[in-house]
Amino acid sequence: MTILNLGIPKGSLQDATIELFEQAGWRISSYSRNYFPDIDDPDIRCSLVRAQEMARYVADGTLDLGLTGLDWILETEAEVEQISTLTYSKTSNRPSRWVLVVPNASPIQRVEDLQGRKIATELVGFTRRYLAERGIEAEVEFSWGATEAKAVEGLVDAVVEITETGSTIRAHGLRIVEDLLITETRLIANPSAMQDAEKRARIDQIALMLRAALTARHKVALKCNVPAHQLDEIVGMLPSLHAPTVSYLYDREWLAVETIVDADAVRDLIPRMRAAGAEGILEYALRKMV
Amino acid sequence: MTILNLGIPKGSLQDATIELFEQAGWRISSYSRNYFPDIDDPDIRCSLVRAQEMARYVADGTLDLGLTGLDWILETEAEVEQISTLTYSKTSNRPSRWVLVVPNASPIQRVEDLQGRKIATELVGFTRRYLAERGIEAEVEFSWGATEAKAVEGLVDAVVEITETGSTIRAHGLRIVEDLLITETRLIANPSAMQDAEKRARIDQIALMLRAALTARHKVALKCNVPAHQLDEIVGMLPSLHAPTVSYLYDREWLAVETIVDADAVRDLIPRMRAAGAEGILEYALRKMV
Amino acid sequence: MTILNLGIPKGSLQDATIELFEQAGWRISSYSRNYFPDIDDPDIRCSLVRAQEMARYVADGTLDLGLTGLDWILETEAEVEQISTLTYSKTSNRPSRWVLVVPNASPIQRVEDLQGRKIATELVGFTRRYLAERGIEAEVEFSWGATEAKAVEGLVDAVVEITETGSTIRAHGLRIVEDLLITETRLIANPSAMQDAEKRARIDQIALMLRAALTARHKVALKCNVPAHQLDEIVGMLPSLHAPTVSYLYDREWLAVETIVDADAVRDLIPRMRAAGAEGILEYALRKMV
Amino acid sequence: MTILNLGIPKGSLQDATIELFEQAGWRISSYSRNYFPDIDDPDIRCSLVRAQEMARYVADGTLDLGLTGLDWILETEAEVEQISTLTYSKTSNRPSRWVLVVPNASPIQRVEDLQGRKIATELVGFTRRYLAERGIEAEVEFSWGATEAKAVEGLVDAVVEITETGSTIRAHGLRIVEDLLITETRLIANPSAMQDAEKRARIDQIALMLRAALTARHKVALKCNVPAHQLDEIVGMLPSLHAPTVSYLYDREWLAVETIVDADAVRDLIPRMRAAGAEGILEYALRKMV
Amino acid sequence: MTILNLGIPKGSLQDATIELFEQAGWRISSYSRNYFPDIDDPDIRCSLVRAQEMARYVADGTLDLGLTGLDWILETEAEVEQISTLTYSKTSNRPSRWVLVVPNASPIQRVEDLQGRKIATELVGFTRRYLAERGIEAEVEFSWGATEAKAVEGLVDAVVEITETGSTIRAHGLRIVEDLLITETRLIANPSAMQDAEKRARIDQIALMLRAALTARHKVALKCNVPAHQLDEIVGMLPSLHAPTVSYLYDREWLAVETIVDADAVRDLIPRMRAAGAEGILEYALRKMV
Amino acid sequence: MTILNLGIPKGSLQDATIELFEQAGWRISSYSRNYFPDIDDPDIRCSLVRAQEMARYVADGTLDLGLTGLDWILETEAEVEQISTLTYSKTSNRPSRWVLVVPNASPIQRVEDLQGRKIATELVGFTRRYLAERGIEAEVEFSWGATEAKAVEGLVDAVVEITETGSTIRAHGLRIVEDLLITETRLIANPSAMQDAEKRARIDQIALMLRAALTARHKVALKCNVPAHQLDEIVGMLPSLHAPTVSYLYDREWLAVETIVDADAVRDLIPRMRAAGAEGILEYALRKMV
Repeated sequence: MTILNLGIPKGSLQDATIELFEQAGWRISSYSRNYFPDIDDPDIRCSLVRAQEMARYVADGTLDLGLTGLDWILETEAEVEQISTLTYSKTSNRPSRWVLVVPNASPIQRVEDLQGRKIATELVGFTRRYLAERGIEAEVEFSWGATEAKAVEGLVDAVVEITETGSTIRAHGLRIVEDLLITETRLIANPSAMQDAEKRARIDQIALMLRAALTARHKVALKCNVPAHQLDEIVGMLPSLHAPTVSYLYDREWLAVETIVDADAVRDLIPRMRAAGAEGILEYALRKMV
Repeated sequence: MTILNLGIPKGSLQDATIELFEQAGWRISSYSRNYFPDIDDPDIRCSLVRAQEMARYVADGTLDLGLTGLDWILETEAEVEQISTLTYSKTSNRPSRWVLVVPNASPIQRVEDLQGRKIATELVGFTRRYLAERGIEAEVEFSWGATEAKAVEGLVDAVVEITETGSTIRAHGLRIVEDLLITETRLIANPSAMQDAEKRARIDQIALMLRAALTARHKVALKCNVPAHQLDEIVGMLPSLHAPTVSYLYDREWLAVETIVDADAVRDLIPRMRAAGAEGILEYALRKMV
Repeated sequence: MTILNLGIPKGSLQDATIELFEQAGWRISSYSRNYFPDIDDPDIRCSLVRAQEMARYVADGTLDLGLTGLDWILETEAEVEQISTLTYSKTSNRPSRWVLVVPNASPIQRVEDLQGRKIATELVGFTRRYLAERGIEAEVEFSWGATEAKAVEGLVDAVVEITETGSTIRAHGLRIVEDLLITETRLIANPSAMQDAEKRARIDQIALMLRAALTARHKVALKCNVPAHQLDEIVGMLPSLHAPTVSYLYDREWLAVETIVDADAVRDLIPRMRAAGAEGILEYALRKMV
Repeated sequence: MTILNLGIPKGSLQDATIELFEQAGWRISSYSRNYFPDIDDPDIRCSLVRAQEMARYVADGTLDLGLTGLDWILETEAEVEQISTLTYSKTSNRPSRWVLVVPNASPIQRVEDLQGRKIATELVGFTRRYLAERGIEAEVEFSWGATEAKAVEGLVDAVVEITETGSTIRAHGLRIVEDLLITETRLIANPSAMQDAEKRARIDQIALMLRAALTARHKVALKCNVPAHQLDEIVGMLPSLHAPTVSYLYDREWLAVETIVDADAVRDLIPRMRAAGAEGILEYALRKMV
Repeated sequence: MTILNLGIPKGSLQDATIELFEQAGWRISSYSRNYFPDIDDPDIRCSLVRAQEMARYVADGTLDLGLTGLDWILETEAEVEQISTLTYSKTSNRPSRWVLVVPNASPIQRVEDLQGRKIATELVGFTRRYLAERGIEAEVEFSWGATEAKAVEGLVDAVVEITETGSTIRAHGLRIVEDLLITETRLIANPSAMQDAEKRARIDQIALMLRAALTARHKVALKCNVPAHQLDEIVGMLPSLHAPTVSYLYDREWLAVETIVDADAVRDLIPRMRAAGAEGILEYALRKMV
Repeated sequence: MTILNLGIPKGSLQDATIELFEQAGWRISSYSRNYFPDIDDPDIRCSLVRAQEMARYVADGTLDLGLTGLDWILETEAEVEQISTLTYSKTSNRPSRWVLVVPNASPIQRVEDLQGRKIATELVGFTRRYLAERGIEAEVEFSWGATEAKAVEGLVDAVVEITETGSTIRAHGLRIVEDLLITETRLIANPSAMQDAEKRARIDQIALMLRAALTARHKVALKCNVPAHQLDEIVGMLPSLHAPTVSYLYDREWLAVETIVDADAVRDLIPRMRAAGAEGILEYALRKMV
């Protein structure tokens, strides 16, 4: 039997990833100090791997499949196949982005002003290539963390740092010059594993089920009763992918309508449906949707 | 575009409020040290405000809408419109109440015995009016917290404190004399905002969706299959708001019944339904119900 | 009115037990330092009791009903009626078991090698009987905790300890000789209470609802639309307890199929259903299933 | 025997106060939930009292003696006798001060610009008097905490808040307009208690010993051996209160010098003493100095 | 070389014990999950052992020396030699004692009233013997912890529990009937080890140094300058074990006095010395005193 | 006035460094989120800098002086002047060392066996040079942390990791092949700063005072009274740097002896001194010793 080596990102994404796999159908148990989380699937072997190193180990075949950020795929220039973009576990409503940051009082206004300057970042390779492509010569040095402090303390001229809202950056008297990269989580596979029919089938299954779980997080089922003469108007409001399911109630003046809609749309939809005469409106959560 | 200024109660109610809004259809992201939580609705601006101060800022129009306790509405005598009572995030099955508390050995047995005494409370205004209405003259002083300690230590004769179960009070050798006020969370609006058509529509939408989410917490959907000859008996048991939905199964001896009932009633209902011949009984959670 | 005295296991199982009761239909509120958790049922009185002592208090009638592990039922040889096995709150996918553990370098290879040795365990009675039944004479002493340390430090020759994965044991240079007991949670009742018609009815109700909640954790509802000509093939895939519910959609070429399946089976089922032409596949969670 | 009622400030100063009393010679034991800390002196009874309320209870005689900040003495206008200023438990090298704070972009540049504005502060009484003395009319409202947030969120025009370094204020995009009050901890007594000979003796004893402990924190004992011919030069460097103690060593070419100096001065003194020929320089900590 | 096996009590006494050994001259390093703390003495091997089990392992020779409470020495009736009583790490100023506790409303007023009752305690052996010696027959059962809860919940009639101040007991509506045992920490040795000259010398050394450290915690060195004519009066105040050291200062009108006194006495001594004319009074801490 | 830029190591050494500076005579106040700790010396400006990056910023003159490990000085090959080795804040009695680690079952027995293998480490530069000097070709890749996990999981063949006791390594089924580097903390300075007379004087002062503080941690003052006829024997035991100070007591049969000895030696010294007739032996701690 072929075993699929799966990399689970260690650290800030770990719990959210395990929760996503659980919703998708795999139970992963992770203990402190255990480097091989249990999974209730004999064909998969899990390892906890840092997001920064995931692409490297997927590229060299140590892992067949893994989850990591686009940033670290680009940083390592690892040759991996990108199967799916999976957006989960965001702490805000805004995307994560790597930004060029300088002190408020710095003369640097555009990325071109970095010419001849010193920059600290955890994303050294990407930043060097980004500058080189624009013909900018600058010293880019690796930062072990607390990167923004280096700009505050004047240890460097600028830093390239990840942020969602930018509020910590502003709170320290720093200024965002521009965005260098919008990043999000990707499911990546080893190219040879994708040539192996058995492994590919497992990878496709996992990708399908993870997407089914994520899709279900943004959809809800809506049911309601509508008076027969209002059916068309109310059905017309529903932005359904498929036609809603309509069935007669015992009282033939009323019909039962059931449909799937975007979770985000419901707060505007329910008041309108109600105004149009819908009654007994119910919303149900979904666990998977394909 | 009109922006609605919404006050989210900071502190003990904060997480529960954000969770309620999420169920109702708005995603609020709150970070430490950020005073304006993100909300995924461009027409709303959130501020974190202490429950004690919410009514004051809603009354003077700094906020259009907010959530706070009845206690602080009464304490501040703020002129606000009370839109809805919203009961959520209770840690026990009992209501929160402000009680008059004295040491076990105190001669004080009724509120009238406070004549000439010294009382500490965080709810100074309410307590003073409460006593004045009953013709009792007493010194009421503001307490910055740890109020019950003042009765234990003999710094004052009595305290007016909030409690649910009274167990902490008893554990310190204190005694509840009587309840002064039962409190719960209220959605309140600025009276002028309620005159503005656009703001009012937003407020009504928010109130409707918050209620839809709270109602759904106390209801469940119940499905089961019943033998045709038992239908009337089983349907008779169901305390449904509306008539249940009944449909024939392929096997015409059996019918599928679907209904909405109080979550609390299910533990008594299922044994009776089963005794009456119902099979395949399933309970589903709801996310919204209007 | 007859009051049922119910023991809730204090400690590691406490939160999971309260959560299970909530799903089953009873809201229990537990505060620090309060020994009688509130329950929203006037006929039940809850006490927090250690798992080790539960069977003792159920046997002597202090409690009517309680939850504890099989290990402590056997340890105490308490005369209780075992109503149900309830598997919940496992931190891994593996069962809990009491194992005989020795240092890696120990000459002990089988339980018979314990002859004349010193063993530490929290489960003294069970271990003594286990050895006696096999004709092994050994000194078994009570361990107040940190039991495995005693084998590491050489204070004893072997220990009998509970584990799920054995990883902590291996991490300390210890070796599992054999499993002595697989344990799991049991709902137990006092035999006299089971003779009291009123108490028995309450116990049966609680057992039924706890099982309904646990069953629902391992099942899901699956809905999908299937082309009429693929119906038999797709229905044939579904490992349903009962026949699935099938209904025509407005477009008579398609049918709606609804069924209950094991949650574990879904990750394999959905890819096959999809390959066979099913569309709009949805998974819903259940809260109770009888 | 007369009992002295002593108020220990509850909260941020509590641990530092207990530590100071321990150094001064009284062991106070404080447990969570216990409002009367034990003290190893049968003539004293301790109560934990909030800093904000200490002066009030000392003024009305409920307490004889207490420690609190100058800010709260002024805020409450309590009639108490100020025995001693005690500076301890500072988290920085800078004094605590109440400052007038506005958003960076506010037009308010001086305290006079507050005319007609709304201000939030925990120090309502002091702030009102401060403004009234300068002929400024403004609305000053009580803030239950998180005061600076109110300026950030625009709930008020300005806030009066306590700070040491001002860094949190700047981090939130706020600006300090001016300092209103420098505060520090004071030992305060009830005026009648100071008229009672027995109580006064106890108060004087406590004040003396607390000062002895605090003085010792800023002084050290320095010992060294100096060549006889360098004695005058080295002794001349020592900023001793009293003349240093000088004694001959067995080898009459060398003398032992012992003195008390400011702890702060030592880092500059030792290099100079060494350059002048001193050897075997030792620094000892002191626990009390009178 | 003979190795001395030393048991360090695991748990609540652990940090205080390691700190005491450090003051006495041995540096012990304890890590989580390491059962053999490092010690900077090649002749000693440390093990972490529960206080409850220490006496057992010292009696059977697994350990040569250990620290545990008198309560557990009596409970286990272990044959060990008691070298020293060491009082350290008390959280209050009162001794630890095992007390008989009942609900406030219990008819039990004296230990004799336990006749025929059920008692829970962690100290089963001691309690049984204590009752047997008084001719009281009662059922004494082992409690795994949270013992006082059993009296509150009515699971037993009384409990025997350890306490210092009794405040938790009172807070739960319980009452102390009487003290059964005052306990404190003892240094205990294996009798055979005490016959081994080399081990005995090590044990004596450790006992001497631990006592030297503990003694130093209750003593301080006091220095002051006194006018010659006041010498006798001031020296007369000093409750010195030995005569104080007196030496002439350069100014022959003044003498330097140095002595060792009880730390507790200083708060009364310094005011009197100062009143008698002493100046430059200094207190120094000690690390060891023999 | 010349400002000296001083780098304080951020993270695990931070608190210990601030404590050392306080003992040496400088009070540093560090707040969360503040990158410039306050220091009570107007001539010094502190920055918090990661140990890994300290040498880089000292070498390029951004900092004049800093503290970091020898490991990171070697890793970065930074051109800095090493002023002093400062050993403080060790959690064990053993030195920190970078070790080559492999799984227990690995065929790698010597560093030479790494030929052609893959190694993960945070110390990439040092490891590459170490192998190159021995003619070993291997792939050395940067590890972002949790390095030992990579050997456990088989992501690499070996890791180079820092450890004190090796116990975590053994607990994970790994084996130390050999030590590559013993490291400790160094005070380093920028070479140009050392050419600047003013800066050099400040650096020398800081180095002198830090050493004075560290020396004092390993020494104690010992005082005792000895009978005149035993003086020579007892003085002969004392491993003093300088001759002890001896003075006559009033009773001329006894002499007072005072000396400085290694703290480590005291546990053996006191029993011998006592056996030889010394009395009133006292140990005092030192805060500085030059």
